[in-house]
Amino acid sequence: MKKVEICLSPELIHLYDVKDKNVVIVDIFRATSTMMAALANDVTSITPVFDLESCRMMAKEGYVIAGERDGTTAEGFTLGNSPLSYLEKKYAGKEIAMTTTNGTVAIEITKDAARNIILGAFVNLKATAEFLIKEENDVLILCAGWKGKFNLEDSLYAGALVSSLHPHFWTDCDTSIAMRSLYEGNTHRLHIFMGQASHAKRLQNHNIEADIDFCLLENIYDFIGILEDGKLIAKKPGN
Amino acid sequence: MKKVEICLSPELIHLYDVKDKNVVIVDIFRATSTMMAALANDVTSITPVFDLESCRMMAKEGYVIAGERDGTTAEGFTLGNSPLSYLEKKYAGKEIAMTTTNGTVAIEITKDAARNIILGAFVNLKATAEFLIKEENDVLILCAGWKGKFNLEDSLYAGALVSSLHPHFWTDCDTSIAMRSLYEGNTHRLHIFMGQASHAKRLQNHNIEADIDFCLLENIYDFIGILEDGKLIAKKPGN
Repeated sequence: MKKVEICLSPELIHLYDVKDKNVVIVDIFRATSTMMAALANDVTSITPVFDLESCRMMAKEGYVIAGERDGTTAEGFTLGNSPLSYLEKKYAGKEIAMTTTNGTVAIEITKDAARNIILGAFVNLKATAEFLIKEENDVLILCAGWKGKFNLEDSLYAGALVSSLHPHFWTDCDTSIAMRSLYEGNTHRLHIFMGQASHAKRLQNHNIEADIDFCLLENIYDFIGILEDGKLIAKKPGN
Repeated sequence: MKKVEICLSPELIHLYDVKDKNVVIVDIFRATSTMMAALANDVTSITPVFDLESCRMMAKEGYVIAGERDGTTAEGFTLGNSPLSYLEKKYAGKEIAMTTTNGTVAIEITKDAARNIILGAFVNLKATAEFLIKEENDVLILCAGWKGKFNLEDSLYAGALVSSLHPHFWTDCDTSIAMRSLYEGNTHRLHIFMGQASHAKRLQNHNIEADIDFCLLENIYDFIGILEDGKLIAKKPGN
């Protein structure tokens, strides 16, 4: 039976076998939610970039550059990391280059060995689950966390995805049991519960509560975000 | 206000400031539960030892040696890691030297910087909470995990301890919120829930379900296990 596991932090990735897995990278506040918003609003692609300097250089090649560190827009960047910036098809047809504090690191360390890199967010949870159920490979959910530490929102998403994959997958590893229980035990009050999260608090301090509201919307998009040739694109799960 | 944090794996300890903290080491199945059973049954002290070879040598110095790897007694050792071995004061008055797969590693990496090293188990949860509440220092709960990975039983204990420390401590870091919710959401079925844990399954395969039952008993002992001069001893929380 296919297996799903959760790696709670990029710092623990060496303990997992990434090879040939469908790796779902999660950075709910806000990298992966923002990427989905951008794709839904017709950006052509998003290139995840590891560091600020390389990303900055890509402006010269025609990319719109998005860069965030510690929750705020990095100096000299057109965009920060707010999903709302991409709404109303404002960057339709553009190629985006994006670097973020935690999310792009998680992509970097897994992309070579994985079968697919898929970006996970609540906004397209169901589509991602549908895609993974159709595939034959094991799944590893990698939570981007916050500077190596466990975080609440990424772990809850991981639990939500495990919940959606059950019973099509073997879900009995300890992290899957725990995060699924955590998610299912708090679905009725997810917004309040997640509002306690330290990263949510950091975002609130930057006056971006609207971003949080957006990142917690479920299934407003019906495509998956998948890395192809180094670029993140939108794809319907059935295709 | 005093703060309590949870480090979910020894592999993440470098992300935490251990200095002057009361560090609670947790290895429910079975190291820390076994240590409490030994102390309750009047062993004089337990010396945690990092590796099998050093531990084996201590037999010559008069120690009773206990050694476990991957859930079974290591070759040439008098005792494995079963709490039941110490019952009925079988080793009363003896000095024990003990090495285990995960628990003794967690002690080794924190003992120099911490204010105190306390060993946490369900069997004396309340006494440990009482001690920590009386102290002025911040608390770091370090889950021994399983070979670096998150495990269910240690994380649930961490959640139970956070639940007992609230509202005397600031408990709003993401791991504390999550593990407290996980524990409080599953208290009514802790035994069944924990029975799903991968380590519990490993122990069941070694025919030691009685050990699991013992490790999940709550508050049968009213002392704490604390490291003093490299030896673990029993102490009443009020002293």
